[in-house]
Amino acid sequence: MTASRSVIATQAADFPRWFQDVIAKAELADNGPVRGTMVVRPYGYGIWELLQEAMNRRIKATGAQNAYFPLLIPESYLQREADHVEGFSPELAVVTHAGGKQLEEPAVVRPTSETVIGEYLAKWVQSYRDLPLLLNQWANVVRWELRPRLFLRTTEFLWQEGHSAHATAEDARAFATRILYDVYRATMVDVLAVPVVVGRKTRRERFAGAINTMTLEAMTGDGKALQMGTSHELGQNFAHAFDITYLSREGRRELAWTTSWGSSTRMVGGLIMVHGDDAGLRVPPAVAPVQVVVLAVKEEAIEAARRIGTELEEAGVRVTVDDRTDQPFGRRAVNWELKGVPIRIEVGPRDLDAGSATVVRRLRDSAKTAVDLSALTSTVVTALEADQAYLLDEATRRQADRITTVATIDEAIEAAADGWARLPYDVVGEEGEDRLGEAGITVRCLQRADGSLPLSDDEPGLVAFVARSY
Amino acid sequence: MTASRSVIATQAADFPRWFQDVIAKAELADNGPVRGTMVVRPYGYGIWELLQEAMNRRIKATGAQNAYFPLLIPESYLQREADHVEGFSPELAVVTHAGGKQLEEPAVVRPTSETVIGEYLAKWVQSYRDLPLLLNQWANVVRWELRPRLFLRTTEFLWQEGHSAHATAEDARAFATRILYDVYRATMVDVLAVPVVVGRKTRRERFAGAINTMTLEAMTGDGKALQMGTSHELGQNFAHAFDITYLSREGRRELAWTTSWGSSTRMVGGLIMVHGDDAGLRVPPAVAPVQVVVLAVKEEAIEAARRIGTELEEAGVRVTVDDRTDQPFGRRAVNWELKGVPIRIEVGPRDLDAGSATVVRRLRDSAKTAVDLSALTSTVVTALEADQAYLLDEATRRQADRITTVATIDEAIEAAADGWARLPYDVVGEEGEDRLGEAGITVRCLQRADGSLPLSDDEPGLVAFVARSY
Repeated sequence: MTASRSVIATQAADFPRWFQDVIAKAELADNGPVRGTMVVRPYGYGIWELLQEAMNRRIKATGAQNAYFPLLIPESYLQREADHVEGFSPELAVVTHAGGKQLEEPAVVRPTSETVIGEYLAKWVQSYRDLPLLLNQWANVVRWELRPRLFLRTTEFLWQEGHSAHATAEDARAFATRILYDVYRATMVDVLAVPVVVGRKTRRERFAGAINTMTLEAMTGDGKALQMGTSHELGQNFAHAFDITYLSREGRRELAWTTSWGSSTRMVGGLIMVHGDDAGLRVPPAVAPVQVVVLAVKEEAIEAARRIGTELEEAGVRVTVDDRTDQPFGRRAVNWELKGVPIRIEVGPRDLDAGSATVVRRLRDSAKTAVDLSALTSTVVTALEADQAYLLDEATRRQADRITTVATIDEAIEAAADGWARLPYDVVGEEGEDRLGEAGITVRCLQRADGSLPLSDDEPGLVAFVARSY
Repeated sequence: MTASRSVIATQAADFPRWFQDVIAKAELADNGPVRGTMVVRPYGYGIWELLQEAMNRRIKATGAQNAYFPLLIPESYLQREADHVEGFSPELAVVTHAGGKQLEEPAVVRPTSETVIGEYLAKWVQSYRDLPLLLNQWANVVRWELRPRLFLRTTEFLWQEGHSAHATAEDARAFATRILYDVYRATMVDVLAVPVVVGRKTRRERFAGAINTMTLEAMTGDGKALQMGTSHELGQNFAHAFDITYLSREGRRELAWTTSWGSSTRMVGGLIMVHGDDAGLRVPPAVAPVQVVVLAVKEEAIEAARRIGTELEEAGVRVTVDDRTDQPFGRRAVNWELKGVPIRIEVGPRDLDAGSATVVRRLRDSAKTAVDLSALTSTVVTALEADQAYLLDEATRRQADRITTVATIDEAIEAAADGWARLPYDVVGEEGEDRLGEAGITVRCLQRADGSLPLSDDEPGLVAFVARSY
């Protein structure tokens, strides 16, 4: 792993720099020409596609249907919900001219779609029979970021945003919670191998227009927090603003209750920050565009490498054969290590003479093991599954190790220098949030003592997770 | 079918109105709030998703990789290619303000991405080893349309746009042609059951910046033409504008050759216009979100309907069980007919007593057939396959019937009143294109006499297909 150390910063020396280096060297993404925008390169997009597929399957399993709403929203729509417009105004990109003329009403490039979707929910929801109405869209959104960072905070990003309307507050809450656990947590844990702490945001961290924001927080390699997704109860705020009403079973006109929930390309940033190491990226097999690379060491091994590749492909493994034997072997090996491909199979003339190939498991210790050719496919298939679990275990252990339970704000500030702190929310409160804020620390979320979701910030006995964050 | 005739216009009376009615009543799409934009509703989006999946698979089979480039493009990028900026300037939507400030350089909402992708091709292409570089993205684009029409010509639409760089003109042409036939024609014919005439656009119909545009044209139910997709040879125009050069095997710096190719949600419009009839939409089974609907006629049939649904689902059929027996059966049946669901299975108490169910094949004559319950699944699976082929046959026959071979411009104008005309291109020429244009007719494409693609507009003996178009 020594060779790659020279091309990227170490995590210990400069974690943000390491993150940037990994993105560049693993060819995940590039800066776009307009400040803060991002070009997602094929390797990064391949991870996103697999993640998207896994998330999409779980979203559909809840009964939500995909649809597509316009990118451009009349400026006046945003103004209908007071908190919403206040929250998003500073981040808006505005189209003032189109078709060679000034527009009568400027159109906002959607920063999120509650407003435009609210307008159509109002149209489509007529009776209690139409509820719940569960929608999702995969789309790009634009929020003008002051301090952009690839994958984590880009001016344009890709995401899914779900929107639903319900007859009762209870039904809306139950659905927003189901998305949180059955869609988001399930995908993050089972697919990205990223453990998350699930909780309720405090009032000041809420989504603009929500009555409750629930979040999933991951711990990065440098002990900070990263918000991986959020699910919001919007109460009747948007129903009121857009007149989303329905005729109840009893024949009364009632205001609906709505939710919204989103997860984005930021999750790819989370994956990098949670699993990466000083040799580069490590991709969980479930979202690895290349799960196995078969490296022909020398020209005379190319045919054998291809045969191995075909066999793995037939076993359902996503495999690439690297037959560029005109380029130095070491450089190629380091390159695949940087890209975090879970398993590397090196095939050289000496291996072949011994009837074996060398297997390197990038997600563990990268030790080299000779494996008999006849056992290669089954070994690889088993290893991919085991290493997916290994990554999750490792990240879960680290997260547990670096969450310190403390009793005071001062102790929390100290603990947050190197990890997260967990402390009683009643010693924090609004004032404590101010003090933490001055130290660059935020309350990531609130939980009940048993880890479940509070119904209000004011429940007694709540626990706060506080940390520095990206 | 009589009942549905009252809710939508007939094709004969007013085809464009019929098209609009079908979109509304089948709940495919809605107008967006900003003029010309579109909301794609879940049923319409379901068709798009299946089409997208089929297209995506074929794109990847060519070796192209998906990526994602920014929505916002610096205005100056468009100006680098003279024809391109001239072609797109009138249609641009421009972001002048963002983050509460006026931008130093306005950003254009991409109408297409040759320019921004050109910038990155220049960065990523260094040596002949990097070629060909084959990219694709699924994205939204914005073109300010004067006469918008849902699915066919919307201000924002969803599409894929492919972009590639090659070492030679021959390689670029071969790839653009492969996309045309192996990706576009294959998907349109095999998946959408839409026959297409494939040819070369005349100079005046070319993509802005291309040296050759190849097109696929479908015939709508009213005998007009609809451009379903295009593939362009861009020559060295964009390579020159963006400095896409490579070091050849011989060590010389050479300009690359690029291509681009796109297909969009307009194909859904094509599907409607090619297959729809006076009872509404007809969806080819390959892209039908619901291939079979099982209708419980009365409450006592609900359980049996559900059992049939489960059995079909297990056989891999996309099926919906309509158990809304509190609503009139006739209205539900007409609704599914409007939505063009290929097969309707009606399950009533009388059917069940006879051990059968009633099968209605929407894509054919909608005649009702009693099918024994034990044979139901196999009958349905066979019928779906046969009816996919039936739709393609029907559309192919109609297309052949309504293309008239003529010898003069006058005859072409007459023939184009009710279909397409096919005539020698040497009797058309630039002047003939003007005359046709005055009659609202355009040259859709040029072919050689044997149906193959010309290498230039000036080849002798070319045949022109001319028609009115959407």
